[in-house]
Amino acid sequence: MMRSGIDDHLFAVIMAGGSGTRFWPRSRENRPKQLLNITGSAEGGLLKKTIELIKPIIPVSRIKTVTTLSQADAVRRTVPEISDESIICEPLGKNTAPAIGISTLFVERDDPDAIMVVLPSDHCIEDKKKFHQRIMAGAYQASQGDFLVTIGIPPRGPETGYGYIEADALIDENNMIYAVKSFHEKPDINTARRFINQGNFFWNSGIFIARASTMLREIAEHLPHNYRWLMKIRSSLGKDEEPGVIREAYKEMEAISIDYGVIEKSENVLMVAGDFGWSDVGSWPSAAQYWPMDSDNNAFIGELISLDSSQCIVYSPKKPVALVGVEDLIIVEEDDALLVCKRGRSQDVRKLVEILRSQGRDKIL
Amino acid sequence: MMRSGIDDHLFAVIMAGGSGTRFWPRSRENRPKQLLNITGSAEGGLLKKTIELIKPIIPVSRIKTVTTLSQADAVRRTVPEISDESIICEPLGKNTAPAIGISTLFVERDDPDAIMVVLPSDHCIEDKKKFHQRIMAGAYQASQGDFLVTIGIPPRGPETGYGYIEADALIDENNMIYAVKSFHEKPDINTARRFINQGNFFWNSGIFIARASTMLREIAEHLPHNYRWLMKIRSSLGKDEEPGVIREAYKEMEAISIDYGVIEKSENVLMVAGDFGWSDVGSWPSAAQYWPMDSDNNAFIGELISLDSSQCIVYSPKKPVALVGVEDLIIVEEDDALLVCKRGRSQDVRKLVEILRSQGRDKIL
Repeated sequence: MMRSGIDDHLFAVIMAGGSGTRFWPRSRENRPKQLLNITGSAEGGLLKKTIELIKPIIPVSRIKTVTTLSQADAVRRTVPEISDESIICEPLGKNTAPAIGISTLFVERDDPDAIMVVLPSDHCIEDKKKFHQRIMAGAYQASQGDFLVTIGIPPRGPETGYGYIEADALIDENNMIYAVKSFHEKPDINTARRFINQGNFFWNSGIFIARASTMLREIAEHLPHNYRWLMKIRSSLGKDEEPGVIREAYKEMEAISIDYGVIEKSENVLMVAGDFGWSDVGSWPSAAQYWPMDSDNNAFIGELISLDSSQCIVYSPKKPVALVGVEDLIIVEEDDALLVCKRGRSQDVRKLVEILRSQGRDKIL
Repeated sequence: MMRSGIDDHLFAVIMAGGSGTRFWPRSRENRPKQLLNITGSAEGGLLKKTIELIKPIIPVSRIKTVTTLSQADAVRRTVPEISDESIICEPLGKNTAPAIGISTLFVERDDPDAIMVVLPSDHCIEDKKKFHQRIMAGAYQASQGDFLVTIGIPPRGPETGYGYIEADALIDENNMIYAVKSFHEKPDINTARRFINQGNFFWNSGIFIARASTMLREIAEHLPHNYRWLMKIRSSLGKDEEPGVIREAYKEMEAISIDYGVIEKSENVLMVAGDFGWSDVGSWPSAAQYWPMDSDNNAFIGELISLDSSQCIVYSPKKPVALVGVEDLIIVEEDDALLVCKRGRSQDVRKLVEILRSQGRDKIL
């Protein structure tokens, strides 16, 4: 699967900031989603799973994790195989463009010819071998020019929770590489249906590949204000002033996503079709896909006793849960809080967390 | 409210056996319903509340509590004002006829002219003053002849969970005392509706009043087998063989309710209308009537955070519960188990407990 010339320059940047409020009460500010084993996987938490996923093609020494200062300790404890130098700490979260910008500086310092594979940490991949093939194909493509190579997922339905990539011509049939016509923000349901019917729309996985130098050039073009601050950080790297400059830059840089701020505006985007069984783990129902299930389609972590109950999602590793005559519920049992949520309302758990925050209930946030 | 001549002979017998499986996981075999404060009352658990209820007309020294051996310690701890001699221990539960039979023996030993007020321990009474008036009127009536005086509750609807008393002529309008035509087991809904339309049907409260001597005579007539064993116990009282005879009697006596075994068959039954605001506390919804309620009709003990949720019953004294988009649920949080049950299915919690028992899950029973 290795292609001569590029594999020594491959780096991974795993985005492990964010708190995953939709997984409350399991996720907390100091116990973010990406460190939790919410899929019940033998490999451990989501971040650890992502490291295991990418390790066969990129050695651990070239895997960087970007997170916020407040979560760095928890990251260190959870994935001790990642060295301290490979953990990039943002003073605060400012969406993905600054995170990827600063990560690019550290990657470029290690290897000016680096090719970066940028990965969120909340995905699950079924066919790992094919994933590796597609990533390597994308990396090869990225190495051949100034391309941002995105990964688009063949859609399984008119999902409204994802952005969409509209593919253009297939330029490499073997490796399923497409030109890209345009990007589309999360659509409403009718638009999503139209996308699906058109057939050339893919879910935006958030995974993309680029040379570090390409990445910086694209940031310079589309986010020049952020770029200037990144250059100040670059000049400070390894010097006494580095932490202070980073802190100042994070006060100043625009909080914007890499998709909206850079990729969607770039002229040099390609897409690899990610036909490797991708699922995001964005809310309880998506995590529960990986859990054991009883004969009434109740997915559970822990012990479940069910009487005339179906289609429930029950996360309660510490105590048995008994259901009588209920359906379509999400039940999450934690030491200091309990959530009972209608299935279909799992996105609103985020709203609930906002309510708790506005009430100053910091102890359970 | 006292009537000369009878108040010195008044005894109360509170039935505090049974486990209240419909209150699982709050109730357990060694933590039965009647010792729990499931109504959130300042007076404490249900048994304690019943003692407080009857105390103004019967002194504590004449209040006896009948329970099973396995629950006796818990009863002692919960109501320390009841002396050891006033706690009557059955070796095992055999429904109410044996419990009342043996209690009658202890009452009769203390006072051959005793008049017994027999009370379940899982009721709530709103108008305590009127309750006392009706009980005293019933006791007076019981003292005037060989009557079993039952308390019938003016029905608030076609409940199928109660037995019904069909009243005959009103024989004392001041005290609302009726002759009784017949008793009816728990009806189906159509029968219950017919009862309500007829107007002379009352809910059987399980409270009744009789002289001890009358009680024994009625048992002799309708449950002669049990009566013979009760007489053996009576002869053994205070002697070394008492515990052994009681154990043997409890192996032999028929397990049957006092209603079905005696009262419904008796020719000498009267009824006092219990117009004092009676509710039984037989399942979570009946207990929740006494709880605080939010503006969406969610009744709760503990801390509740509700988003678009209504008509729920939440018992979680130890940890906050968050609801998102759910309705008509019963949620009961315990240290070692969690119940989520559809409202309207609360009777089936008993079924759930049977399933747990059949699975040998004794730790949470």
